[in-house]
Amino acid sequence: MRRLRMGLIGGGAGAFIGPVHRIAAELDREIELVAGAFSSDPARSRQAGDIYRIDPKRAYPDVATMLATEAGRDDGIDFVTIASPNHHHFTASRMALRAGVAVMCDKPATATLAEAKELAAIIARSRRPYGLTYTYSGYPLVREARARVAAGALGIVRKVLVEYPQGWLAGAAEGKQALWRTDPAQAGEGGAIADIGVHAFHLAEFVTGLRVTQLLADLAAVVPGRVLDDDCQVLLRFNNGARGVLLASQIMVGERNGLRLRVYGDKAGLDWSQEQPNILTWRHGDGRTEIIQAADAGLGPDARWATRTPGGHPEGYLEAFANLYRDFARQLRGEEGSLLPGIDDGLRGMAFIHLAVTASRAGAGWVEFEV
Amino acid sequence: MRRLRMGLIGGGAGAFIGPVHRIAAELDREIELVAGAFSSDPARSRQAGDIYRIDPKRAYPDVATMLATEAGRDDGIDFVTIASPNHHHFTASRMALRAGVAVMCDKPATATLAEAKELAAIIARSRRPYGLTYTYSGYPLVREARARVAAGALGIVRKVLVEYPQGWLAGAAEGKQALWRTDPAQAGEGGAIADIGVHAFHLAEFVTGLRVTQLLADLAAVVPGRVLDDDCQVLLRFNNGARGVLLASQIMVGERNGLRLRVYGDKAGLDWSQEQPNILTWRHGDGRTEIIQAADAGLGPDARWATRTPGGHPEGYLEAFANLYRDFARQLRGEEGSLLPGIDDGLRGMAFIHLAVTASRAGAGWVEFEV
Amino acid sequence: MRRLRMGLIGGGAGAFIGPVHRIAAELDREIELVAGAFSSDPARSRQAGDIYRIDPKRAYPDVATMLATEAGRDDGIDFVTIASPNHHHFTASRMALRAGVAVMCDKPATATLAEAKELAAIIARSRRPYGLTYTYSGYPLVREARARVAAGALGIVRKVLVEYPQGWLAGAAEGKQALWRTDPAQAGEGGAIADIGVHAFHLAEFVTGLRVTQLLADLAAVVPGRVLDDDCQVLLRFNNGARGVLLASQIMVGERNGLRLRVYGDKAGLDWSQEQPNILTWRHGDGRTEIIQAADAGLGPDARWATRTPGGHPEGYLEAFANLYRDFARQLRGEEGSLLPGIDDGLRGMAFIHLAVTASRAGAGWVEFEV
Amino acid sequence: MRRLRMGLIGGGAGAFIGPVHRIAAELDREIELVAGAFSSDPARSRQAGDIYRIDPKRAYPDVATMLATEAGRDDGIDFVTIASPNHHHFTASRMALRAGVAVMCDKPATATLAEAKELAAIIARSRRPYGLTYTYSGYPLVREARARVAAGALGIVRKVLVEYPQGWLAGAAEGKQALWRTDPAQAGEGGAIADIGVHAFHLAEFVTGLRVTQLLADLAAVVPGRVLDDDCQVLLRFNNGARGVLLASQIMVGERNGLRLRVYGDKAGLDWSQEQPNILTWRHGDGRTEIIQAADAGLGPDARWATRTPGGHPEGYLEAFANLYRDFARQLRGEEGSLLPGIDDGLRGMAFIHLAVTASRAGAGWVEFEV
Repeated sequence: MRRLRMGLIGGGAGAFIGPVHRIAAELDREIELVAGAFSSDPARSRQAGDIYRIDPKRAYPDVATMLATEAGRDDGIDFVTIASPNHHHFTASRMALRAGVAVMCDKPATATLAEAKELAAIIARSRRPYGLTYTYSGYPLVREARARVAAGALGIVRKVLVEYPQGWLAGAAEGKQALWRTDPAQAGEGGAIADIGVHAFHLAEFVTGLRVTQLLADLAAVVPGRVLDDDCQVLLRFNNGARGVLLASQIMVGERNGLRLRVYGDKAGLDWSQEQPNILTWRHGDGRTEIIQAADAGLGPDARWATRTPGGHPEGYLEAFANLYRDFARQLRGEEGSLLPGIDDGLRGMAFIHLAVTASRAGAGWVEFEV
Repeated sequence: MRRLRMGLIGGGAGAFIGPVHRIAAELDREIELVAGAFSSDPARSRQAGDIYRIDPKRAYPDVATMLATEAGRDDGIDFVTIASPNHHHFTASRMALRAGVAVMCDKPATATLAEAKELAAIIARSRRPYGLTYTYSGYPLVREARARVAAGALGIVRKVLVEYPQGWLAGAAEGKQALWRTDPAQAGEGGAIADIGVHAFHLAEFVTGLRVTQLLADLAAVVPGRVLDDDCQVLLRFNNGARGVLLASQIMVGERNGLRLRVYGDKAGLDWSQEQPNILTWRHGDGRTEIIQAADAGLGPDARWATRTPGGHPEGYLEAFANLYRDFARQLRGEEGSLLPGIDDGLRGMAFIHLAVTASRAGAGWVEFEV
Repeated sequence: MRRLRMGLIGGGAGAFIGPVHRIAAELDREIELVAGAFSSDPARSRQAGDIYRIDPKRAYPDVATMLATEAGRDDGIDFVTIASPNHHHFTASRMALRAGVAVMCDKPATATLAEAKELAAIIARSRRPYGLTYTYSGYPLVREARARVAAGALGIVRKVLVEYPQGWLAGAAEGKQALWRTDPAQAGEGGAIADIGVHAFHLAEFVTGLRVTQLLADLAAVVPGRVLDDDCQVLLRFNNGARGVLLASQIMVGERNGLRLRVYGDKAGLDWSQEQPNILTWRHGDGRTEIIQAADAGLGPDARWATRTPGGHPEGYLEAFANLYRDFARQLRGEEGSLLPGIDDGLRGMAFIHLAVTASRAGAGWVEFEV
Repeated sequence: MRRLRMGLIGGGAGAFIGPVHRIAAELDREIELVAGAFSSDPARSRQAGDIYRIDPKRAYPDVATMLATEAGRDDGIDFVTIASPNHHHFTASRMALRAGVAVMCDKPATATLAEAKELAAIIARSRRPYGLTYTYSGYPLVREARARVAAGALGIVRKVLVEYPQGWLAGAAEGKQALWRTDPAQAGEGGAIADIGVHAFHLAEFVTGLRVTQLLADLAAVVPGRVLDDDCQVLLRFNNGARGVLLASQIMVGERNGLRLRVYGDKAGLDWSQEQPNILTWRHGDGRTEIIQAADAGLGPDARWATRTPGGHPEGYLEAFANLYRDFARQLRGEEGSLLPGIDDGLRGMAFIHLAVTASRAGAGWVEFEV
């Protein structure tokens, strides 16, 4: 069975997430990076191609050229990964899908909700696999949590707490990564809510299997002079009546990437933190607290499938990311079982951002969650 | 210098908090329990007197008798501690103060905000010391946190997260402690918000030195059939513009007493958890994370004063509680430096409960915090 | 039932452990400090009496006077607590026992093994209660661990790791507490091995129910100019064939009081740390890791008896210490169930110190453990 | 710059470490797996080649064929990785080096100390790069620790504690991985000491920069019927006079892969655990405890070079392993700066195993560490 061939869009010099996609895609040797349109500047795209050590001829100056040229090769790309800034996501996705090429897209799916809806229609027509890298859904213990909740191990879910504290934007934005995220022209209408809040939102729905039906949003730009939100506190209602709180902030000084999910049912509670991803705390209704560890004997098939090393050999962010690519490869090969987020998750994420931003501006009050 | 003499109101058989007051008061040998009106049933009051091993003659059938009789003794009580159910707090406080006896009262100050206002006036007239046992303000590292914030170590406070998860009321209420807390006739208008939410509220104001000016409350009775709230999510605004979230819940299965406070300024962030009270995490703006431990050499005078043992010898809840009594003793002796909460804190706490309950019922929306 | 009356030997100004004994003894109101021979300097003894707020007439200039005078009172002391330096322990114990007064003694029992043997004989003849405050055996979860091991929950014990890192003597000794501990004239033949190693030794035997039968000791005085050991590494064999390691050091910079015990059987393993005393980690043979917390519903009677507050309300060092006094009170009242260490533990501790010191000097090699 | 070409020896079906080498080698796209002699059974070797998705012609039946055939290709392998059982390490290394092919070898270097010495001579003559995958030296914070110790941040190192608890061999050996490790014919003279003890030994020397000069070993086969040691306790002396303890065990039920290193100097102490590899605890001499995290701004060049993701995005075992391959690639390209262990470390490791086993058999006593 040959390796699937990947063309990378974006991921040129100075990028963080492009190289992460490359590592994740290739980790299990099911996929190989063979081409790229790494930058809108042809010279920079070639330079990136050298850094990735691909065939110089396949470092293209733009997406259209890549799609056209690769289509003419016997060993042309099977899919593109889109890791360019958010405002390119829609166009690049559309181009690829129209060319019959599958798409793996970094989140968010698009820059606006309207684009996301249009993209959903395009995907439906194209019938090509489309995946969205909500990275944290790739962690083995997140999948274990999801499976246990689905099996009723929490009982009826009543309460969901999801928080995503970061501190790196607590001061004035400096550097490429900070600048585009705080610029409405590049980032869209949401700041922290779009950058990290949407991850928290997805994680909560992914693990609980519930859907948010109402929210009350209180967003603010705390750092003087900032336009986009950098601190978000959102109250939630879920479709089974469960209540929740979502916090996302980039001004919590000293916090790294503290995504944490707690879910409580009427029988038990669970607690997972991204910075200690190989531990899942389970609080049983009888008072026992259990520390579930990655690769434990009692884990279910989803978690086992997503684990490469024995217990006590920590896996991390890159391995979680790679699990999304393994899922994607299953889809490309027509196999079952993928848990990879797709455009439905993308739509919900865009709706979440839009609703949170607009509702917060309008003065906090409960709004219906509609996609 | 003689020991101060304490008369205990409440704290009869089956009580949790009465014995805690006794231990806390006597821990440092500045105070001695000598009398009590432990129960409204005279026989039970005598029986409790035996258990506390006090002079049987000083186990009184009611508060009035205790106050009158003790007033006639050369070695009569210096103060009363009120540890009876909430709806007695006001009456007992008033009786004692009118008799010229100082009062240490378990929180909440009264059963209603109106009572609290009346009590404030009585206290002002009486000029006797009045203390309120917001226990968690007695922890050494809480006081260290407070002192550092006051000294500007966080910079300008921007964000406050305070949470108080418990799980013991996740099922139907059973037992004396659960039953009165879920009964509006005994507990007042608030459930979890009054039982624990108000602790979280006080802790946030105590450490930050800020005052809540607005809140948006979302309270619910999650357990089927329950009348009073058991799950509270509250958004906060502080008088310097800082934003915050307060969570208090008694349906988070498996949680014990997880009060936790996080405060972030523009320079640094702090993190303290009641279940690990001898650790204070300090996140410096330059990325360094420091674990401050009780009895560390670098601690300030408030924390040192509140610590009895060397580093690595854990102190806990009873010692924190005892610090409130040491504060109270300082007040009784006319000494400076007490950080003991008083009726102002009591008023704010009652206002918080009342506002949260009424605002939540009215449909969530921001309300002004007024006392 | 009246409170038992305590006379304190030692515990004058600047003492650490004397006040700890006082707090611990009185915490549960079964015992009351009424007298003391706090210092060999009569003025200082009177001054200490004032600080403890006892009747000035009962602050005695020496032990003999206290014993004689108290014997003549109707409300004379029931027991003495010996908290003076180690080299007084034997003499004070003997005087009290000969006067028919029970003894609670801070560890170690005596300054030498020979004294300990003589004391054992005196105790046997006196038939008065004699207790030794190996503090850490008072923690609820230590007692839970002991009960579970005794019930076979670990299976056959195979491996014992006990470590006691401290760092406060990593530099030149400064201050009263450091100076006497590093002075052979006051501390005896052992430094860290006698000060803290013996605690670790006792804890290991207490929890496992096993007895050390052989040891191999490697002790050193690491700090330049120091005479007594400050760093100890000891290999152990137990009477069932189990193997073990005991580490005790006072030169591990930055460590506070990190006593930790790990025991592994053929079925499960346990892990307890003094600085987080309300958690007991249990590693089940099937891979599950359980976090047992103080006051959990599933705890046995020994742990429950030793716990005063509900789950999540941390208890610490003083409460553990107080449990030893509750045990002692049971003995004084002729009740069953005490787990308080006695002279047998004292003898074994003195033998451990002596063997470790002498065997290490002789060049490391296995020696038989004999008392 | 082209990718370096790797030929894998071993790593066939059911292997754990072979795929780990493959992932690690390719993670940074500097290296590519192109060939292999995956099994001594030609059919199984071909099958493994398919799983790795390499050119079927380059899945060889044996090492000699691989070396000979690849030598004739323009795009032949640049190096071999040896991931076959220990008793093949020497022969395979010799064959490759004689063929002028560089070698990356899984630890241990050889099956016996004599072989290791012979291999060292071969390597010296061959002048080809030779690397040994002591995995744990690849973690960023291990390298940070090493750099800080070298810069004097601990002061003079006095005490080293290294422990490596596992529990998976606490019962009778079952499965391929367990069976060969407990079989002297395949594993050599050491059990746990060779499998994991040697990792602990290397880590201690790697971080401290010190060399063990004496040891006292106490090894045992605890599980009934086992021949090789499964529980090791070893006392250490280092060349600067520092003292230490090394523990390695595979019978500590419930432990996964708990390698932990603590080092104390006269100024500070450090603490690192493999299962939480992104945290390094630093205990300063003034009492401050600092939590250093991967990707922190204050880290030195070695740690930064070894880190791929921003703070809070956990990296783990595979990334640490990949750092060794990045080091090896530097060596192959003639670049400076590699920290990859080599044959000197291999020799010391083999000597450590041999000394520990033989000294323990002879009855515990101090032996000189000689290579």
